[in-house]
Amino acid sequence: MRFVPTIFAAFLVLVSVPCSAEGQERPRLGLTADEVAEINASPDAPGLFGEALASTRAAVNPWLDETPDIPLPADAGGGYTHEQHKRNQRTMLGAGQLYRLTGDEDYARLAARMLDAYATMYPELGEHPMKKEQSPGRLFWQSLNEAVWLVTVIQAYDAIYDWLPPGRREHLESGLFRPMAEFLSRGQPQTFDKIHNHGTWAVAAVGMTGYVLDEPEYVEIALLGLKKDGSAGFIRQLDELFSPDGYYSEGPYYQRYALLPFVLFAQAIERNEPRRGIFEHRDGILLKAVDATIQLSYNGLFFPINDAIKDKGIDTAELVYGVSIAFARTRDPSLLTIAQRQGRTVLSVDGFRLAKALQDGQATSYPFRSRVFTDGPAGEQGALMVLRSGEEHGHQAVIFKATAQGMGHGHFDRLAWLFYDNGNEIVPDYGAARYLNVEAKYGGHYLPENNTWAKQTVAHSTLVVDEASQFGGDWKRGMEFPPRPLMFATGDRLDIAAARMEGAYDGVRFTRVLAMLKNGPFSRPAVVDLMRVKSGETHRYDLPLHFRGQVMSINRPLDASTQSMQALGQDNGYQHLWARATAQVPAGELLQLTWLNEDRFYTHTALAGDGMNLVFAQTGADDPDFNLRHEQALLQRVSNADDHVFVSILEAHGKYDGAREYTTESASNLADLVYTADGNRELVRITARNGAVATLALAPDSGPDDAHRLEYDGTVYEWTGPYHLFDN
Amino acid sequence: MRFVPTIFAAFLVLVSVPCSAEGQERPRLGLTADEVAEINASPDAPGLFGEALASTRAAVNPWLDETPDIPLPADAGGGYTHEQHKRNQRTMLGAGQLYRLTGDEDYARLAARMLDAYATMYPELGEHPMKKEQSPGRLFWQSLNEAVWLVTVIQAYDAIYDWLPPGRREHLESGLFRPMAEFLSRGQPQTFDKIHNHGTWAVAAVGMTGYVLDEPEYVEIALLGLKKDGSAGFIRQLDELFSPDGYYSEGPYYQRYALLPFVLFAQAIERNEPRRGIFEHRDGILLKAVDATIQLSYNGLFFPINDAIKDKGIDTAELVYGVSIAFARTRDPSLLTIAQRQGRTVLSVDGFRLAKALQDGQATSYPFRSRVFTDGPAGEQGALMVLRSGEEHGHQAVIFKATAQGMGHGHFDRLAWLFYDNGNEIVPDYGAARYLNVEAKYGGHYLPENNTWAKQTVAHSTLVVDEASQFGGDWKRGMEFPPRPLMFATGDRLDIAAARMEGAYDGVRFTRVLAMLKNGPFSRPAVVDLMRVKSGETHRYDLPLHFRGQVMSINRPLDASTQSMQALGQDNGYQHLWARATAQVPAGELLQLTWLNEDRFYTHTALAGDGMNLVFAQTGADDPDFNLRHEQALLQRVSNADDHVFVSILEAHGKYDGAREYTTESASNLADLVYTADGNRELVRITARNGAVATLALAPDSGPDDAHRLEYDGTVYEWTGPYHLFDN
Repeated sequence: MRFVPTIFAAFLVLVSVPCSAEGQERPRLGLTADEVAEINASPDAPGLFGEALASTRAAVNPWLDETPDIPLPADAGGGYTHEQHKRNQRTMLGAGQLYRLTGDEDYARLAARMLDAYATMYPELGEHPMKKEQSPGRLFWQSLNEAVWLVTVIQAYDAIYDWLPPGRREHLESGLFRPMAEFLSRGQPQTFDKIHNHGTWAVAAVGMTGYVLDEPEYVEIALLGLKKDGSAGFIRQLDELFSPDGYYSEGPYYQRYALLPFVLFAQAIERNEPRRGIFEHRDGILLKAVDATIQLSYNGLFFPINDAIKDKGIDTAELVYGVSIAFARTRDPSLLTIAQRQGRTVLSVDGFRLAKALQDGQATSYPFRSRVFTDGPAGEQGALMVLRSGEEHGHQAVIFKATAQGMGHGHFDRLAWLFYDNGNEIVPDYGAARYLNVEAKYGGHYLPENNTWAKQTVAHSTLVVDEASQFGGDWKRGMEFPPRPLMFATGDRLDIAAARMEGAYDGVRFTRVLAMLKNGPFSRPAVVDLMRVKSGETHRYDLPLHFRGQVMSINRPLDASTQSMQALGQDNGYQHLWARATAQVPAGELLQLTWLNEDRFYTHTALAGDGMNLVFAQTGADDPDFNLRHEQALLQRVSNADDHVFVSILEAHGKYDGAREYTTESASNLADLVYTADGNRELVRITARNGAVATLALAPDSGPDDAHRLEYDGTVYEWTGPYHLFDN
Repeated sequence: MRFVPTIFAAFLVLVSVPCSAEGQERPRLGLTADEVAEINASPDAPGLFGEALASTRAAVNPWLDETPDIPLPADAGGGYTHEQHKRNQRTMLGAGQLYRLTGDEDYARLAARMLDAYATMYPELGEHPMKKEQSPGRLFWQSLNEAVWLVTVIQAYDAIYDWLPPGRREHLESGLFRPMAEFLSRGQPQTFDKIHNHGTWAVAAVGMTGYVLDEPEYVEIALLGLKKDGSAGFIRQLDELFSPDGYYSEGPYYQRYALLPFVLFAQAIERNEPRRGIFEHRDGILLKAVDATIQLSYNGLFFPINDAIKDKGIDTAELVYGVSIAFARTRDPSLLTIAQRQGRTVLSVDGFRLAKALQDGQATSYPFRSRVFTDGPAGEQGALMVLRSGEEHGHQAVIFKATAQGMGHGHFDRLAWLFYDNGNEIVPDYGAARYLNVEAKYGGHYLPENNTWAKQTVAHSTLVVDEASQFGGDWKRGMEFPPRPLMFATGDRLDIAAARMEGAYDGVRFTRVLAMLKNGPFSRPAVVDLMRVKSGETHRYDLPLHFRGQVMSINRPLDASTQSMQALGQDNGYQHLWARATAQVPAGELLQLTWLNEDRFYTHTALAGDGMNLVFAQTGADDPDFNLRHEQALLQRVSNADDHVFVSILEAHGKYDGAREYTTESASNLADLVYTADGNRELVRITARNGAVATLALAPDSGPDDAHRLEYDGTVYEWTGPYHLFDN
């Protein structure tokens, strides 16, 4: 019950493995003759595989009699030449796959014709005219796109290798593949040797090219870094970028992106050098990473923590590959349910077998679970803790972000939480401020507001001290101070998690407990939120709750801005918030805010401490370019406090049915909320309107066998360990 | 092509028809023995009917062994006793239907036990303690609910009539049905004789009771009014509340509500007195009304014009009845598609036959069409004009609101428009400001903001003169001035509609043309909007465009409110708008606003006239109770103008796919927009970025054979009739 991070001892796979695939059968990456035979022996193309086949044909066939459109590089991301080269990479891969599957040489001719054109153009290219500062490409504005392109196109070459006469191979390799592999490795050592997803794409591209070109040198530097000593490269990335639980340090949005080169390159290694046992490396870390990516989602969408485009979910192309490869290795039938939800698969033998199993009705439900995902290479840098009320559609989920910084894409949101219910984000994370590839929106890049708002602490549902962001908004400093998970436990009656943060603000320590009461005292699960702040000096503490929905009621008189509205502050994200209304709540009394999201009501009840003010805020200030979405937040504000405890509870209740014109339980079911503490022992007593009582007793710092006793209101509560739930 | 309203000569069905059903077989309303036999002869309960049977059983069975819960009236709408009496009416009806279908006397006993209890309680009731001022009920706070209750419960009595011993019938009729029918008719003559949906519920309740109780007097006053002279009652309502096209004067939200008593009572009349030919009355007005209700929807939801809860759509219970009855009479297979979308049907022989036809695969697609729906009893009070680009999911639709006032629930929005695309509201109507049955929101009534915002002219996409609302916000005055439709035409290349308004503002006449270009010059249909204002005096003209989505770009420098934001005005809805930003546009230049809604971009281009200012506004000012949704609008503002022409075009373009990370055509495809006029002849020339040109020539006041000529920019345009589309 007490939190003990699993310490993972990283063994680098530095054993010297002869790395030549010379003489091995081709293709090296794609469909073998046996696999093609297996597929063609099937009386029909099963479901998703048949659709993949049809959609690939539909995309490729129009190009069979067309002159390839291979423009000189000119545009940045989203622009014409950028998109055309991306389209071409897909066309070449599709043509290669179709050639293998059908033997139709027209497809081989198409792929060869396009490759020829690239091999003729590539040597002439200098740096891209719209180059990104840090990592310019040649074909694309950034080398990242070039690595992705090579990962794709080397598979097309692999597919038609045998069909090509040696002279044409020589042209392609000397004109395109070798220069590109050189450029992506020795040409940009800072990226190639970086322990980062850009590095993974580069090593995957170079390594896969190595297998196809019979160039062991490429494979070796891809696996071990340019110095070939394991200080960089794929193995090091596997060891450092994932935690022992398969959590990727930047969060699920980048995790799914990083996943693709990991699994594609791993598959190539397994195929060409099975004795490296790459899928067994680190106790099967790659398959754990695939599984974690799926787990880090709700209603098909990834938890949008850190920089994240919120539309991304499990149907993303990268995870389609991930699931097909994971299913090939594990035959886990619950992955079929995910594939079904993805609605597509890959044109590989893995995709074929998956589609067949799905068609044969082998799918079982995927077990979404309350789980902890440690962060950091050894699981020592905090954790993402997920509490779920079930696994059915519409279940409740609490995401407790007690992870490390997650590098430059990380947000300053230690101990923030997100809440989902009824299929919707209720306590959301803003995600990234970005409109990907929309030229008018800052060229499709991260918007300035990503820094001035989305990353800032006040943009998250966690503690803000003195209107500043954690670590002064310096992510490198943030890397030094991971939070400390204190407790994670699940059970029939409640799931509970606790974590502590020190170092985010000088001299301030804060501890948060989030408990999902799954069984009473209300008809639906409710979330208890305890945020305990300690400091030797006085500060202003703000605890924002970002919430989505239409406000139904507030049980306090409000001082609302009706004629004019001011920005809430000057900096650290506060400049983007309008001060919509304020209220004061006497100590010991309750503030209740009820809102409606879709067809369900939510009530957030806060127990006021001394000098509690409330601020209703909405985004949109200092936003002359309409870059921000309109979102809203309730801030619990305490000024001039040293120690303070924020006690809150969030209920979901009732139903609003505008179509059938009825409404039930539109008001909170909470009658009373009480908090008391004695040292590190705490009690939160919740009384429902129907008289049911639940008292959560806490001692988050205690060991599992420590006995506790606390008397309150004439009742003695005695328990052992860090928490207990009483019915009185 | 020229607009000629169909004048309908209302013939009152005053022929004296002997109105006794005495001696006729029972039941008088529900399932006959033959119908039950037909249903039971079916090997299975087909699809929707089987579900209706199962859900009715599930709702009724738990009460078989329970003591009925029939509380003394105490609560207002949404409260416990209110909802319980509504539940009871459904339980009694369900029990009656199940008794007929199964012969199981337990169901008859349940219905009888509940009816007995009501018959014992009802005579003791005075006016409801929470009575609504205008029309208090006894069992409910308003008599409307009581009429709905009686319409339902008389069917339950009808179903078990034969099973009841005469003595119990006497108790029920003398204790409940006669007093209630008396109360709803002579007890509240102002409602019973009102030409209004409340009146329809009352006459249906009393008339249906008349058939079941063999009381011709009830039927006669229901049909002809209390004076029995046709000055009120059902026939008069049929003649006055619907236009010849089946449009109901309050709009679709109330149309579907009014529909139920109309069709239920009509069915009772047809069954008991078929020679009245009620379904043939007024050229089949009832079935036209059912059809119109369906047509007045987009993506399953009703156009939310006037006071309307926006969640309401074709799956509403009232229209489930309407579709089953219409299908029974017409066997129109396209209605099956609507039933399928509704996902449920009625526990009647009509529902059975519909479900069987649906199960047999007879459904054909429902023809959503560009159509005009005249308003007013003779079609002489304006029209709702609907332009559609197709009928498939995601087609574009323009709703041009040139209807009459629609009584007290009408909005001050003459010549406003709504635009739908891609399944979404793009240019929305706010609908009603109301959270139905949410006690915390003003008791679930219409909110004060329904008057101060939702009804006001500025809350709609139409002309506002001098920051005032049309007709000074006086709906009775509004009843006197319907707009005049000028033109409505459909074709392969474009659909077009025009209307003119006089009397909304003293001395100001405005004419709007809305044209949907379905075929060029852009890849998707685009809407041309021409608003021409004439006045002898100078005014401030505002033309709001309400739009939904995230702003992507504005092609003018903005003066944005970043530190503080002021309300846009003091009254007439302006007090609820924050002035988000302003911009100036030199005459002859274009203002382009691009936004993103779901995965598609929209660009609104306005051609600036003299002294054009732009105001970006958002709702939320003067809203201390958080009653308003957050919506946004762009106002084209011209001050000190007498005559003015607003020329705009709305394009849909491109795609944003955050999940697959690509974006296409995120910028407008418009290169140029030009307007020129000579007298009443006008030209709007649109040039796309690909060079395609479309010139819309207009002479909305001209006859179909009038020849026109206009020269512009060296090109001579010659056409005949009110409009023509040129490709140069």
